[in-house]
Amino acid sequence: MSVEIKLGKVLLVGAGPGPVDLMTVRAVRAVESAQALLYDALCSEEAIALAPAGCVRIQTGKRAGKPSMKQDEINRLMLRLARKGLKVVRLKGGDPSIFGRVGEEAAFLKGFGVETEVVPGVTAACAAAAQFGFPLTHRGEARRVVFTTARLEAGKLSGDWSAAADPEATLAVYMGGAVAGDLARGMIEAGRPADTPAVAIEKAGGAEARLYPATLATLAERIAEAGDGPLLIVVGEVAAFATANSMSQVERRAFG
Amino acid sequence: MSVEIKLGKVLLVGAGPGPVDLMTVRAVRAVESAQALLYDALCSEEAIALAPAGCVRIQTGKRAGKPSMKQDEINRLMLRLARKGLKVVRLKGGDPSIFGRVGEEAAFLKGFGVETEVVPGVTAACAAAAQFGFPLTHRGEARRVVFTTARLEAGKLSGDWSAAADPEATLAVYMGGAVAGDLARGMIEAGRPADTPAVAIEKAGGAEARLYPATLATLAERIAEAGDGPLLIVVGEVAAFATANSMSQVERRAFG
Repeated sequence: MSVEIKLGKVLLVGAGPGPVDLMTVRAVRAVESAQALLYDALCSEEAIALAPAGCVRIQTGKRAGKPSMKQDEINRLMLRLARKGLKVVRLKGGDPSIFGRVGEEAAFLKGFGVETEVVPGVTAACAAAAQFGFPLTHRGEARRVVFTTARLEAGKLSGDWSAAADPEATLAVYMGGAVAGDLARGMIEAGRPADTPAVAIEKAGGAEARLYPATLATLAERIAEAGDGPLLIVVGEVAAFATANSMSQVERRAFG
Repeated sequence: MSVEIKLGKVLLVGAGPGPVDLMTVRAVRAVESAQALLYDALCSEEAIALAPAGCVRIQTGKRAGKPSMKQDEINRLMLRLARKGLKVVRLKGGDPSIFGRVGEEAAFLKGFGVETEVVPGVTAACAAAAQFGFPLTHRGEARRVVFTTARLEAGKLSGDWSAAADPEATLAVYMGGAVAGDLARGMIEAGRPADTPAVAIEKAGGAEARLYPATLATLAERIAEAGDGPLLIVVGEVAAFATANSMSQVERRAFG
C-alpha cells in the first residue's frame, strides 16, 4: 500500500515592473493567498505587502548589505516549504519567462514531484515603453524586437550579435548598465548609424523611473549619472518616441 | 482671450491574452471607468464586459462577418470621442507596445492635442510560456528572445532573418500560422537543425488555448489541424519544455 504525501504547489509569479496596479489580477490573488513568499530584489515593498499576516516572507535577493541567495539555495528552500504542504509563491520582478530563471526552478521542483504553475507578468521593456510613450515595434520601421542581456568576455561582448545590425529590429537590453558603452560601440561597428536613437530607463515602470534619452554615440556618457538601479537599454528608431515630457506622466494613473 | 477646450484622454490599454485575471489591475480599472471602449478582435468578451453600463462599446476588429475598421477610421473615431470629452479606452489584445500599433495611434492623437497614456499588458509569448511551462530565455541555452512577425513577399520571407540562425535565440513569431512552413524552411536553411524544438500555440493564455508540439521539420504538418485563431510560433531549445501534460493545466487558476 502506498502512502500519498500531499505536496504543496509552487507558483512562479511575475510581479511586473513594481507598482501593484501593474501586476495581473491573478498575481495579486496568488500573493494574497500565499503561505510562504520568496521574493527577489526587484519586487516592490508594495507587492510584498499583499501577502497575508501569517505568511512566511523570505527575501532571496541582495538587500541591506546581505548577499543574494544562490539559485540552489532558493530551489531547496522552495522544495522544503512545498513539502510542508504550504502554498509557496516565488515572486519575481517582471515576467518569469524572460530572464527569470523559471525554467531552472520549475525543472528542479518537477524533479521532486512538486507541481508548479507560472503566472505571467508585464516585462520591463513593455512597462518602459508604456510609461515613456515609445512602441517596441512600429509599422515599417521596427518589425522585430529582441530582448537580450549582454555580457563581456575578455573585454568583448559575448554571443551572437548579428541581430544588432538589423535596422528593422528594436533591441531591448536587460540589466544593460555595465555594458552600455561596449554595446553601443558594437552596434555601430555592426553597421547601425551612430545617431540611432537609444534610451536607458532606470527602474522602469515605477514612480522612481528615470529616462535617459540618447543616441548610440552618446549613450555611455548620458547614463554616467544613472544610479545603481536596474537599467534597461532600448536601441532603435522607436526610441525617438520617448520624449522628455513623458517624465511628468510617470506618477499618473489611469484617469487618476 | 483663449478658450480652452477640455479634451478627453485616450488610454491605450493592453488586455493581455484574454482571461480577465491576466489583465493588470490598472487595465481592469481603466475599462471599468471607460465612457467609450474601442476593442479589437483579440479582446475577450469577459474583458469587454468590465465596461460600465453607460459605456459606448465599439468593436474595431473583424467579427461576425463584418470587416475590421481601417486604422485611419479607428484614429478618427478615437479623436471624435475624445473631443466629446469622453474617457476613451482603446483596448488591445496582449501588450500595446508589441505589434499593437500604439505608436501610430498615439502620434495621431498627439497631433490633435489629445493626451494619451499607455497601460502595458502581458504579451502573448509570455502568456503562452507561462501556460505551457516553457521559458523564453534559459541560462546557457537561450540568451535572447526575438519577437517578430513574418511576411511573405513574392513567396519568400521578407526582412532580415539573420537572427534566425542564432542558436542562442528563442524566436517567437506572432500571427505565424500562414508562414509557418516557409519560416521553418528558412530557419533550417539559415543553419538551425531540423530537429530544433518548435511549438505553435493557438489562442495563447486562454481556456481554449491549444499547444502543437513539433520540430522545425514537422511544424507545418502539425499545425495543419489548427483552427483559424491567432497562432504564435515559438522556436528554440526552450520549446522542448512545453509538454503535453501542460494541457491539463490550461483551465487551472492560482490555487484554484
